[in-house]
Amino acid sequence: MSQYSIAVLAGDGIGPEVMQEANKVLDAVEKKFNVTLNRTAYPVGGYAIDTEGEALPSKTLLGCEQADAILFGSIGGPKWDTLPLEQRPERAALLTLRSHFDLFSNLRPARIYPGLESLSPLREDIAKSGIDVLVVRELTSGIYFGQPKGREGEGEEEFAYDTMRYSKREIRRIAIAAFEAAQKRRGKVTSVDKANVLVTSRLWREIAEEVAKDYPDVELDHIYIDNATMQIMKNPAQFDVMLCSNLFGDIVSDECAMMTGSMGLLPSASMNEEGFGLYEPAGGSAPDIAGQGIANPIAQILSAAMMLRFSMNLNDAADAIEKAVVATLEAGVLTGELLPSDKRSQAASTSQVGDEIVKQL
Amino acid sequence: MSQYSIAVLAGDGIGPEVMQEANKVLDAVEKKFNVTLNRTAYPVGGYAIDTEGEALPSKTLLGCEQADAILFGSIGGPKWDTLPLEQRPERAALLTLRSHFDLFSNLRPARIYPGLESLSPLREDIAKSGIDVLVVRELTSGIYFGQPKGREGEGEEEFAYDTMRYSKREIRRIAIAAFEAAQKRRGKVTSVDKANVLVTSRLWREIAEEVAKDYPDVELDHIYIDNATMQIMKNPAQFDVMLCSNLFGDIVSDECAMMTGSMGLLPSASMNEEGFGLYEPAGGSAPDIAGQGIANPIAQILSAAMMLRFSMNLNDAADAIEKAVVATLEAGVLTGELLPSDKRSQAASTSQVGDEIVKQL
Ligand SMILES: CC(C)[C@H](C(=O)O)[C@@H](O)C(=O)O
Ligand SMILES: CC(C)[C@H](C(=O)O)[C@@H](O)C(=O)O
Repeated sequence: MSQYSIAVLAGDGIGPEVMQEANKVLDAVEKKFNVTLNRTAYPVGGYAIDTEGEALPSKTLLGCEQADAILFGSIGGPKWDTLPLEQRPERAALLTLRSHFDLFSNLRPARIYPGLESLSPLREDIAKSGIDVLVVRELTSGIYFGQPKGREGEGEEEFAYDTMRYSKREIRRIAIAAFEAAQKRRGKVTSVDKANVLVTSRLWREIAEEVAKDYPDVELDHIYIDNATMQIMKNPAQFDVMLCSNLFGDIVSDECAMMTGSMGLLPSASMNEEGFGLYEPAGGSAPDIAGQGIANPIAQILSAAMMLRFSMNLNDAADAIEKAVVATLEAGVLTGELLPSDKRSQAASTSQVGDEIVKQL
Repeated sequence: MSQYSIAVLAGDGIGPEVMQEANKVLDAVEKKFNVTLNRTAYPVGGYAIDTEGEALPSKTLLGCEQADAILFGSIGGPKWDTLPLEQRPERAALLTLRSHFDLFSNLRPARIYPGLESLSPLREDIAKSGIDVLVVRELTSGIYFGQPKGREGEGEEEFAYDTMRYSKREIRRIAIAAFEAAQKRRGKVTSVDKANVLVTSRLWREIAEEVAKDYPDVELDHIYIDNATMQIMKNPAQFDVMLCSNLFGDIVSDECAMMTGSMGLLPSASMNEEGFGLYEPAGGSAPDIAGQGIANPIAQILSAAMMLRFSMNLNDAADAIEKAVVATLEAGVLTGELLPSDKRSQAASTSQVGDEIVKQL
């Protein structure tokens, strides 16, 4: 029987309660697919600051190193927002994990499930046009990590600076990830850049073109980031895979997530070249609704499915979870934010949704 | 009688035909408000490349230097897209003009006019929530112009880099522009940054806070760029003035423009500390519809109104044009793109819209 070990980092806010449902689903997967998914919980984020004095304690990092994958909840909240930037949960834990494990390949799918179109902030005809985008974001380079970064000078001429930087190798590996994904989808990559202004973007475009030659069955387009934010609103159905640098991917993936109107359904994967990865919901820790049992666990559960698929190659199990989620949505077992305001009294709780998915499985 | 001189740079695509209507309106302003608006036309963009060999001929630059303001049409098109980047119309003309005249303060209003809500790609309830945003974008610094920029290294480790850079002085002057604008509007500035990642953004935030102290009647909020692109879709009515760096303003202003669904109505102003400015429509040169007399001249006409207001202090004339535009929209004299597809046969031509605005004036 195959065995895998998973570092479970539930984190803050709604993290622990949605993670509980993902664990239920993984328990069911163990039985149904005859695998062992050993899970060990580690403190992270604000919770780890409160209990261990830092957002990413060394035992957590060590636990992640020993695991086959990290299942991540969400971190941060107003309580830790006044800390110096470098100590805050998002940076001290999330950015550190990304860079420590070289998780360069970030996949952020955004789709509108049939029947949930009215949640989208977009006009009905656009929301119903068949929206299913995969944002492939480079996650360990670009202006997030480029050196030098700093402050210099004095008085009014004091200035701050950041460096946007990409090597051919860094661009090539994320471009390959995008083309590989497009081959399994609708065969189209749209590369997002600002090549009319940025030297980095010109190299980005060059390498995207080079990689495209190895994928004759995939079509490659280029779009400027400013135009991308417009087209996502006007005609999102035109996009299949959007290939983005770290900063542009941050922007594009969030706009795509919001366009669906159902952030609580969106998972994400952040992987390195060895297939090790961190899997987390697209939404945040939502401290305002934490602890009430009303948070949607689906993004966390779909993140677990991505983990099974990409880090453990358990495609059948991943398919089964994804189908069970669709069945649950179709059965109308929905948390409140997916319901019109006059139907919120019929909302399912966090654990009822988890139970239904297990049942459908 | 007061006299002003205007450098008229109509450019490519629909530029010349919409400029003709702006000229009609300025002729009417001369009579009604007893001013002289001397206009001299100069070649720019692709047209200047074809006729003079470069996108910004020296006689054009000289003409601009001698004028009180530049009224700009639009430039670029597929014909010139294969030129080396540095020679293309957008960079060789537009970016050069911005930096030559230190046009650091870029105002890009985006509003949905009553009655035109159905053009918005947003859901009806959102489109009708009262959308009227002013994006104040820094236009002469940041990653557009920051040095160093270049390419280094060899093989797969060859890398490209750009520098995002802001001084306190640069941030302060654009922040002041945003607060001044907010005082005349609804008293709220939302500063857009990525302070959880960028050193430049932290300085941006610091200076925005400092400037805010001088405007106790204006409220200041901060929002991350990724969240901004979401909120613009979900709840754009929350925004009054959005204060942005060059790159973030490029993105945010385009998303805001698209959100209105009526790009052909949106003007923009780019000004320096002396009140000299370049005024241009938010949309592009639209080569696909050029020369057919169907382009909407309103963005160009409202750009002329901004010019009268900001570079000539002719507020009455600017008010009058803006009122005449609203009256024209209310009278239903609309170009085709503002009409539902089954009513396009009733569309007014470019010159009919111009004539109606003159009449309303
Ligand atoms: C928390 C923040 C640093 C992070 C990012 O910008 O990458 C977040 O916005 C994300 O997209 O995962
Ligand atoms: C043409 C391009 C260089 C320009 C910019 O990025 O500033 C345009 O997108 C704009 O917003 O005016």
